[in-house]
Amino acid sequence: MYNPTKPYKKPILDLIKQTWKTPYVSIENGIVKKKFNYPEYHHADGIGTKGIYHWEARTFKNAVLDALAMNLNDLAMAGATPYALVDHIVLPKEDNKAILEIVLHLTQECKKRKIAITGGETAIHSNMEGLEISITMLGFVKGQKPNQFRPGDSLVGIASNGLHSNGFTKVREVFKKNYNPAFTKPTLVYLDCFLRLGLYEKYDVHGMQHITGGAFTKLKDLLDKSDAIIHRRHRLRPQKIFKEIYKRGVSDNEMYKTFNCGIGFVLSIAPRDAEKIIAQLNTEFKADIIGEVQKGNGKVKIESMFSQKTVKF
Amino acid sequence: MYNPTKPYKKPILDLIKQTWKTPYVSIENGIVKKKFNYPEYHHADGIGTKGIYHWEARTFKNAVLDALAMNLNDLAMAGATPYALVDHIVLPKEDNKAILEIVLHLTQECKKRKIAITGGETAIHSNMEGLEISITMLGFVKGQKPNQFRPGDSLVGIASNGLHSNGFTKVREVFKKNYNPAFTKPTLVYLDCFLRLGLYEKYDVHGMQHITGGAFTKLKDLLDKSDAIIHRRHRLRPQKIFKEIYKRGVSDNEMYKTFNCGIGFVLSIAPRDAEKIIAQLNTEFKADIIGEVQKGNGKVKIESMFSQKTVKF
Repeated sequence: MYNPTKPYKKPILDLIKQTWKTPYVSIENGIVKKKFNYPEYHHADGIGTKGIYHWEARTFKNAVLDALAMNLNDLAMAGATPYALVDHIVLPKEDNKAILEIVLHLTQECKKRKIAITGGETAIHSNMEGLEISITMLGFVKGQKPNQFRPGDSLVGIASNGLHSNGFTKVREVFKKNYNPAFTKPTLVYLDCFLRLGLYEKYDVHGMQHITGGAFTKLKDLLDKSDAIIHRRHRLRPQKIFKEIYKRGVSDNEMYKTFNCGIGFVLSIAPRDAEKIIAQLNTEFKADIIGEVQKGNGKVKIESMFSQKTVKF
Repeated sequence: MYNPTKPYKKPILDLIKQTWKTPYVSIENGIVKKKFNYPEYHHADGIGTKGIYHWEARTFKNAVLDALAMNLNDLAMAGATPYALVDHIVLPKEDNKAILEIVLHLTQECKKRKIAITGGETAIHSNMEGLEISITMLGFVKGQKPNQFRPGDSLVGIASNGLHSNGFTKVREVFKKNYNPAFTKPTLVYLDCFLRLGLYEKYDVHGMQHITGGAFTKLKDLLDKSDAIIHRRHRLRPQKIFKEIYKRGVSDNEMYKTFNCGIGFVLSIAPRDAEKIIAQLNTEFKADIIGEVQKGNGKVKIESMFSQKTVKF
């Protein structure tokens, strides 16, 4: 159950209790009763060193969105529906106002999504610069199928919101101590839209990849006797912040290995479905065909948006 | 599912897969099927700033034991049986050897206890000094009853293993940069023994408190129109490290507010059961009657082991 560091206990518990009644669980005295019987998918992730900037700028709502997005977008790849989470919030020093603001935003975002906060911990780590919001997300899976790109598929990209929550070690290396508001913009949560559109039930999505840690190298995990080809001619241009990074001497290869470069999520689908899905996705995001899957041997080829080069992984 | 930072992916997955078959769950392709239908209890905790010392001394097995103990001893208070965990391991820099050693120990400890590792994340936070092993522990609860100290109860203490995993901000304040092997001794896991002895089924335990963050002030949570009195005359003496801290000018009050001072876990039980339980616990730990519960108004009174003073919360 929720066991935060005093003296925040009562107000924190009052907040998270607001999430305790959902279509999926009921919770009494911290004991969780489930109303479903599907297999589950469990995932953990945090906001990493982006927490340095969120702490300095006190952008706590965006920090919460980042922590949620990192988990929910991974659940999207498993076709899972979230039903509960356990959080572990770490601040570099005592700050009652900050912790309550973080838990308030977390509660609000969870209520929207019918996610119960079933446990959590708040800690002070004076050995840390910045904050961390680590979340373990529990989801259920109605039907499971392989997550794989198939030769002949179209690759549909969905625009990112900028840097999202990875590559921040590189960001700090490049910008040193200079802050840019682009550093604290939140990661987009794609799963909400997928669930709302019934993406998993209505369409035959063959493969899905959240473009985060490892960026486009992660596409290799979904290739088997196939190559992923990403073109230069599509609508998902890199945001200004990526051009700023590139200008400071980061190579094309490093850009696509480290950053989403404007593309936050990639779907691999039969070309006949691509247009319909893009029309649906465009009601909430900017989506476009960014390339295709060909027969091959597990390679990723990307026409760089930063130069005339082609990046290969 | 387990999504660690490359290049550790394959060996880490191979390790954690060893935990995927238990009496409670079966896991295929990362999807968790449960074999039970009890309500659940979810908890998260990490090792906090003790991770600074574990990182420097490379005491990774003890770090894993600490992270497990912080969660399992909390599950003990809810009478819960652990069945799965999700980990979030954060290192201050890339270290393939360290991460594999940590996951190896985690796997071994989980196999012993029939806990499946259902998900996890490995991250590098260059903004941290030391390592963190944050764990979300999932348990099931067969029967729930209130956790409360009752007037007339005997308080049974179980010896700690020294500092355990809290009070390390104070430790660093007191000892500055001086390392002492007592800093990295692992927290005892009390739950294993409780489950083995059938403590919850065989005896009527009224209240339980793991003495960790907040130390003896946490006993107040379990008092209602009663006081907890802890005597000086019992076998659970503070270890040498506590005397070292006290000698350096930490007050009696601060000692009992911050540290376990030799007592890692407290049970509140009817006096007629106390001797039997102590005999059982003494097969694995050192246990003794340390005091009693009286009618009162929620106060904790402790005869200090460091002086002739009485500490009151």
